[in-house]
Amino acid sequence: MKSIVEGVLKFQQNAFPQLSTLFKELATTQNPTALFITCSDSRVVPELLTQQNPGDIFVIRNAGNIVPSYSSEPGGVTATVEYAVAVLGVTDIVICGHSDCGAMTAISSCKCLDHLPAVASWLRHADSAKVVNASRTHISDAVRLSSMVRENVIAQLVNIKTHPSVALALEQGRLNLHGWVYDIETGSIVALDGETNRFVSLAEFPQTVATHSKRSALVA
Amino acid sequence: MKSIVEGVLKFQQNAFPQLSTLFKELATTQNPTALFITCSDSRVVPELLTQQNPGDIFVIRNAGNIVPSYSSEPGGVTATVEYAVAVLGVTDIVICGHSDCGAMTAISSCKCLDHLPAVASWLRHADSAKVVNASRTHISDAVRLSSMVRENVIAQLVNIKTHPSVALALEQGRLNLHGWVYDIETGSIVALDGETNRFVSLAEFPQTVATHSKRSALVA
Amino acid sequence: MKSIVEGVLKFQQNAFPQLSTLFKELATTQNPTALFITCSDSRVVPELLTQQNPGDIFVIRNAGNIVPSYSSEPGGVTATVEYAVAVLGVTDIVICGHSDCGAMTAISSCKCLDHLPAVASWLRHADSAKVVNASRTHISDAVRLSSMVRENVIAQLVNIKTHPSVALALEQGRLNLHGWVYDIETGSIVALDGETNRFVSLAEFPQTVATHSKRSALVA
Amino acid sequence: MKSIVEGVLKFQQNAFPQLSTLFKELATTQNPTALFITCSDSRVVPELLTQQNPGDIFVIRNAGNIVPSYSSEPGGVTATVEYAVAVLGVTDIVICGHSDCGAMTAISSCKCLDHLPAVASWLRHADSAKVVNASRTHISDAVRLSSMVRENVIAQLVNIKTHPSVALALEQGRLNLHGWVYDIETGSIVALDGETNRFVSLAEFPQTVATHSKRSALVA
Repeated sequence: MKSIVEGVLKFQQNAFPQLSTLFKELATTQNPTALFITCSDSRVVPELLTQQNPGDIFVIRNAGNIVPSYSSEPGGVTATVEYAVAVLGVTDIVICGHSDCGAMTAISSCKCLDHLPAVASWLRHADSAKVVNASRTHISDAVRLSSMVRENVIAQLVNIKTHPSVALALEQGRLNLHGWVYDIETGSIVALDGETNRFVSLAEFPQTVATHSKRSALVA
Repeated sequence: MKSIVEGVLKFQQNAFPQLSTLFKELATTQNPTALFITCSDSRVVPELLTQQNPGDIFVIRNAGNIVPSYSSEPGGVTATVEYAVAVLGVTDIVICGHSDCGAMTAISSCKCLDHLPAVASWLRHADSAKVVNASRTHISDAVRLSSMVRENVIAQLVNIKTHPSVALALEQGRLNLHGWVYDIETGSIVALDGETNRFVSLAEFPQTVATHSKRSALVA
Repeated sequence: MKSIVEGVLKFQQNAFPQLSTLFKELATTQNPTALFITCSDSRVVPELLTQQNPGDIFVIRNAGNIVPSYSSEPGGVTATVEYAVAVLGVTDIVICGHSDCGAMTAISSCKCLDHLPAVASWLRHADSAKVVNASRTHISDAVRLSSMVRENVIAQLVNIKTHPSVALALEQGRLNLHGWVYDIETGSIVALDGETNRFVSLAEFPQTVATHSKRSALVA
Repeated sequence: MKSIVEGVLKFQQNAFPQLSTLFKELATTQNPTALFITCSDSRVVPELLTQQNPGDIFVIRNAGNIVPSYSSEPGGVTATVEYAVAVLGVTDIVICGHSDCGAMTAISSCKCLDHLPAVASWLRHADSAKVVNASRTHISDAVRLSSMVRENVIAQLVNIKTHPSVALALEQGRLNLHGWVYDIETGSIVALDGETNRFVSLAEFPQTVATHSKRSALVA
């Protein structure tokens, strides 16, 4: 904790002065254009990864970058998505998984989670990805995990489309959905291509979109 | 979205090479010592604010930096806290609110949230803070909001103590809880002092701990 | 009730003898190839409408032909879909709405449902359809209702894709999803065309499929 | 699916013209007097079995003809019962089980349902019937299953009485409840006699009523 408090003092002395004009502008308003949903993992820093400034991206982080499908019992992710889309009017949502994810490893390797009841319950929102991934043969545990991470991103994209705020924004052509997987060791990102349904290098195909802002996206 | 994708390319070309040794070490392991729970607000960047590197802090972000109390229906925050405390063994949890919070403004000003049903449902986890704050007289709307933000941090600290993993770690003296409020315009932070129950400047009192790692912490 | 009991006796005397060979074959086994999900409405008789015999179609009926998205609290529809797909191995699922639907009328005309708490709660699974339909202008109440019925079928198709059993079957290319709307007065049916995202006459385009049995169906 | 689409065309060409007058009358209204709750099983066609026309019976179908007892989280069956009783004002509700039921077989033979989590969860609403049936000795598996089917109908009759709309209608003497079991091979039906609490042949005792429309019905 000492290094965190020291970090705060360092921020106030060194980093803040350089950003003080920006923070003054941001004091009473924010206008992020994207919602970035990623894992709580300490190694995934969305603002670093996307080189965005304070004020640029609205961020949800939880174990496994999970988005429960809409239900009569909406929780924190659903509420935050609703706020981002219906109040802030973000035009893009990125769901970003990552390599070596602890949550996905637990699923992929069928770990017993009896001692972690809340985690076990939460990961049921990835059940679709789990059964799809388990139905395939993989040449190694590493490939199985890597595939699980990607399938989870796909499953969460399916889930988020059940949210009314998202359905409306897609209908009105003012929202794009993106599915990414970040590799911690190399810094590379692959993005889901909605047309071919494959993950492609974002660096090579920077226009890749998982779901275009067309009504047909909901049913095709 | 264009600036985000360009940011990723910039990250890969400029930022990553400087951090490549660190990222190589982090490729298959993380050892964060703290869990940082804050708002999805685009202006609150925990790693910037605490000057922490990738791998240093585990992060939960949602609208209103809310931690629902433990229930038979655990959601994403509960699962992620459980993972951080029981699996990663973090020694510190910071719950960090901030100035000009949209969620707290909605509560503080009694906004009608009928058109945002998921947000309305989610903010009920701040009801304790709401009724406490509403019971007081405030000299202005700004003071009412500022007070609401602080009361919400206190309420979420009470909520998190209902989690079994947290109760156990506190009992065993291996966890400290911290309540902070970050001011966007000035970059300053006030921290809850568990002994006096007042918020004090973190810069002046860097040792401030909201909840000591003592059994009494559960009832203090 | 008298006519129902008399109907049973009539069935036993007249209808059953003609079908006794079929029923004997069916005594200990069923092999339906399709799951037909439609409304509880007394005017919608799926076996009549599709001219299917006993043993041919597995049927779910509830108010509003609703399929809740998958959650950690699965209910009867989810259980029955799981049974149909994972145990019976149906190759097709039809979600069939209909004209003059009481549930859709309640939503479309913004009826107060305070005295029907269970109905109100249930219809929240059509919230996506509701907000999409409410965002448009309609030239009459009748058109608004007709549009609501169609949007509801689309929303339920989005919901059913979150079910693990459905995701797996789509992945493995052994399931097609179909969205239909039946007009009680004329007996005609329109089917959602997944490529153009329009409803077309089933009589004219009998091959229409809402969602192809391709993995891309999940994300496109 | 081909036979279903062909069946629709056949319906439109042959069956509909004979019923067009009826369907014209039904275009904007339905007045069913009974709610018929039965299994999704493809072999159980309620309108065939009771020789009823479109417009005559309101129908709920799910795996196991289950009616969850009333709870703070009402689902689709509860909503549809509420609609049938409180809005349509049906005077009779039939809960109809059947021979060779897959859901009841799973319970009766203690099948492992780990791979069918939603089914397992749903069948818990038949736990009362399960424990009652398991407490008895049966001379064969076939008898055990047959007994399970009957006990399940009884348990669902108990469950439905917990619904406020049903309790009110019973109190006001405007509703009768009926418990039936249909035998697929022979077409025969046995009905629960509310006075003796035994199942009797409906053909021989057509006046059998499981639960009289008296207040005492709630506790008998």
